[in-house]
Amino acid sequence: MTNSTEQDHAPVTVIGLGPMGLALAGAFLDHGHTTTVWNRSPRKADDLVAKGAHRAETVTDAVTASSVLVVCVKDYEAMYGILGQAGDALAGRTLINLGSGTPEEAREAVAWAAERGIHYLDGAIMVPPFAVGNPEAVFLYSGSKTVFDAQQATLSSVGGTTFLGDDPILAVLYNTALLGLMYSTLNGYLHAAALVGTAGVEVAKFAEIANGWFLPSVVNAYLGANAAEIDKGEYSGAQGSMEMNLTALEHIVRSSEEQGADAELPRQMKALAERAISAGYGPNSYMAVIELFKKPAGNA
Amino acid sequence: MTNSTEQDHAPVTVIGLGPMGLALAGAFLDHGHTTTVWNRSPRKADDLVAKGAHRAETVTDAVTASSVLVVCVKDYEAMYGILGQAGDALAGRTLINLGSGTPEEAREAVAWAAERGIHYLDGAIMVPPFAVGNPEAVFLYSGSKTVFDAQQATLSSVGGTTFLGDDPILAVLYNTALLGLMYSTLNGYLHAAALVGTAGVEVAKFAEIANGWFLPSVVNAYLGANAAEIDKGEYSGAQGSMEMNLTALEHIVRSSEEQGADAELPRQMKALAERAISAGYGPNSYMAVIELFKKPAGNA
Ligand SMILES: NC(=O)c1ccc[n+]([C@@H]2O[C@H](COP(=O)([O-])OP(=O)(O)OC[C@H]3O[C@@H](n4cnc5c(N)ncnc54)[C@H](OP(=O)(O)O)[C@@H]3O)[C@@H](O)[C@H]2O)c1
Ligand SMILES: NC(=O)c1ccc[n+]([C@@H]2O[C@H](COP(=O)([O-])OP(=O)(O)OC[C@H]3O[C@@H](n4cnc5c(N)ncnc54)[C@H](OP(=O)(O)O)[C@@H]3O)[C@@H](O)[C@H]2O)c1
Repeated sequence: MTNSTEQDHAPVTVIGLGPMGLALAGAFLDHGHTTTVWNRSPRKADDLVAKGAHRAETVTDAVTASSVLVVCVKDYEAMYGILGQAGDALAGRTLINLGSGTPEEAREAVAWAAERGIHYLDGAIMVPPFAVGNPEAVFLYSGSKTVFDAQQATLSSVGGTTFLGDDPILAVLYNTALLGLMYSTLNGYLHAAALVGTAGVEVAKFAEIANGWFLPSVVNAYLGANAAEIDKGEYSGAQGSMEMNLTALEHIVRSSEEQGADAELPRQMKALAERAISAGYGPNSYMAVIELFKKPAGNA
Repeated sequence: MTNSTEQDHAPVTVIGLGPMGLALAGAFLDHGHTTTVWNRSPRKADDLVAKGAHRAETVTDAVTASSVLVVCVKDYEAMYGILGQAGDALAGRTLINLGSGTPEEAREAVAWAAERGIHYLDGAIMVPPFAVGNPEAVFLYSGSKTVFDAQQATLSSVGGTTFLGDDPILAVLYNTALLGLMYSTLNGYLHAAALVGTAGVEVAKFAEIANGWFLPSVVNAYLGANAAEIDKGEYSGAQGSMEMNLTALEHIVRSSEEQGADAELPRQMKALAERAISAGYGPNSYMAVIELFKKPAGNA
């Protein structure tokens, strides 16, 4: 038996059975891992147990069942609350935390794990639960390359394995950054759908242009093409100035008001363009807004 | 000579030579139209004149030079200010307004044009200037189908020709909706880039995941797949609840604070998720936020 085959079926314990933990445990089971699960509300394991998972009665039982523990709960605090119940049983085991958090929490977890002799890896899941188990689902990892290398084969049962670097904050930092991009895009999309909805346009109809063309071929393509320019701090307004964009934002605010839809989101965006103009970026491209984002709002 | 060939080279007057008007006039010239241009600041026509365009000295000269006038200036007010100088010369001509505005402004323009015997069509350009002239560049039109049909061949010299319907507000409404989606996405992207930038990650590096995978394959795909559900008002939280999303938004706020980046944008997004929870959508998916956007903020 090769090492890689062994790894592929290594016993795994999954702690946390929210929508995401359920998907993770399901994917480990589907890939033939002996899978032990624990959740604060134990009934959430019922379907997994029917499919062959072992339900641990206590956290200590869950921890001792496997040398690899995957934790996916609400936040770091919930993780500490749970693992605190296992005491010394954690020493020598590998802990992979896939819940979301902040850079400081990721740094603290490395120290916390080191004190307890735990091999620790921080990760972040960039897809919804239904996409877990697909090799194209992006999972981001950072911190100990040694732990990552040792667990990569096991982790490939739940998705792709992208290692961002040894700085342990990278996975959560990318996670919060990408999630911010996601929420901002979702907000813009849902607002747009509500706005065209005032004229009786269905979301499915709007999606033909918005998803089928505008978002991938204009917005994403434009951003991708401008990445290097942004790095250079070059924000040429030759294709359209911040002033022009402010006028467009005024039209979005007024359209929303006229049509009786929410105008707060466009007003917030308009205020941002006004701040950029006050900061001297009136003749520049909209990309100059990143300069505002590099500092806390209110700082010059 | 067939009618369509005639149309393809019909003389056109372009009024307004900002970045977009310059691109439009350039595309008409490239497609062999006799092209007359006018701009408040006449020097902006210099390059076009060198390429064969005619510079009209007065608005009346510009209007009488062609039976089709394409106007692309800052807003409707600027258009009225300019065309007011042409008096009766406008009667019987076709006016295509490609500037951005609001639904009420689009409705008023139809009435304004009818009083003056002008054949009017409202349009909106959904691409940046450099993409003008490409048949895949989306130009949206709405209002008189008769005017649209008569000018479609001419308009195809600057881009695609999508007719949204006879309601004259549709082009500006789609325009403001899609632009809102664009600004919201750009803000999220630039904030994300600033956030990972605090750890020394370059935008070009971040773009590999953000543009190469996350935005097209997760965000856009997810939204496209959910359009029909949103129309039904079904916001199942089985794959992740609003409460889970609020926790993620808290992590984005705190990550931004910890890293010394702007935390205002994430705070605004967090406040929106809190409003959704107060409105009873805690167990639902994030898509339920559209219900907030259907009403002015502050209304129950
Ligand atoms: N769902 C998604 O689309 C998605 C995508 C990517 C990443 N994530 C991340 O994955 C993690 C889990 O997300 P989720 O969607 O499964 O739902 P969630 O609501 O974030 O987490 C639910 C899980 O956390 C447990 N939990 C919460 N507070 C606890 C506490 N004080 N003590 C013990 N356990 C506690 C819950 O136990 P009970 O069942 O007993 O309440 C449940 O197992 C989060 O960090 C989330 O950001 C989720
Ligand atoms: N650039 C883009 O990426 C883009 C994309 C899609 C749609 N659009 C839309 O296209 C339209 C034009 O945009 P743009 O980028 O070319 O730049 P802009 O700054 O919106 O408009 C500049 C043009 O408007 C003229 N103008 C402004 N105020 C005027 C006034 N009071 N009287 C007479 N003329 C006036 C300017 O004349 P002067 O040269 O004399 O100042 C210039 O011709 C806008 O509605 C914009 O929303 C632009």
